Amino acid sequence: MSSPPDINSSQPRIVDVYETVLYGSDIDAVARFYRDIVGLPLIQSDPDLLAALRLPGGGVLLIFDPVAAAVPGRPVPSHGAEGAGHVAFRVEDLNAWHAHLADRGVEIEREIDWGAERSSVYVRDPAGNSVEFVRGELW
Amino acid sequence: MSSPPDINSSQPRIVDVYETVLYGSDIDAVARFYRDIVGLPLIQSDPDLLAALRLPGGGVLLIFDPVAAAVPGRPVPSHGAEGAGHVAFRVEDLNAWHAHLADRGVEIEREIDWGAERSSVYVRDPAGNSVEFVRGELW
Repeated sequence: MSSPPDINSSQPRIVDVYETVLYGSDIDAVARFYRDIVGLPLIQSDPDLLAALRLPGGGVLLIFDPVAAAVPGRPVPSHGAEGAGHVAFRVEDLNAWHAHLADRGVEIEREIDWGAERSSVYVRDPAGNSVEFVRGELW
Repeated sequence: MSSPPDINSSQPRIVDVYETVLYGSDIDAVARFYRDIVGLPLIQSDPDLLAALRLPGGGVLLIFDPVAAAVPGRPVPSHGAEGAGHVAFRVEDLNAWHAHLADRGVEIEREIDWGAERSSVYVRDPAGNSVEFVRGELW
């Protein structure tokens, strides 16, 4: 089956995700979790609106207050979601992460062995977002 | 100022974000947007729960139905957020993206020139999530 060349040739490419976004009303508490537990450098923090943490690949994890970010008329388009979001981080040594999380008093909500040396550990950040640490290729 | 070596040496590292998550009740419509407009390969689709699209860096963009994903007792921890989320994609040729989006009838909600050859184009996906295409280092 041949592809439609006109459409494919005009399709620009993204490099990758640049901003991954989660929400939480206590920006400081959520930012501390991703800085102190997940180990991401905090590069910007405005406790009324957002925190930005650097990801190893060069992108950022952004934590927004869902109410402040949804206010109309901001310089950027408004957004803001209520409820538990989800993010998964790729890791190499999941056992080390399990020990690290337990040592820091972070409750392990679930552990799943997907087989074929693939497994996940799930915790919650202070805003209730589901945070997964993944070893292996689930997708 | 010296760093506390005990803490730093025990900090495991993430490789990067593996799953970036957005929500939308019409999974098919949202998945088509990211497949046909953003150009991501659709690798899994269950119209009642989620769609998974491959990102160039090896991770995935997941689209969940916020109600179905929040049902308690799923094999994985529940989550689900209502309201407009946000994602930004890093691109090299933002002019090509602007033309591509306009050609496909996607309304450009805003364009921002951040200076120093950094700029953003914002659109909405069919669920109302704010989707940004970024050239340059904003963070």
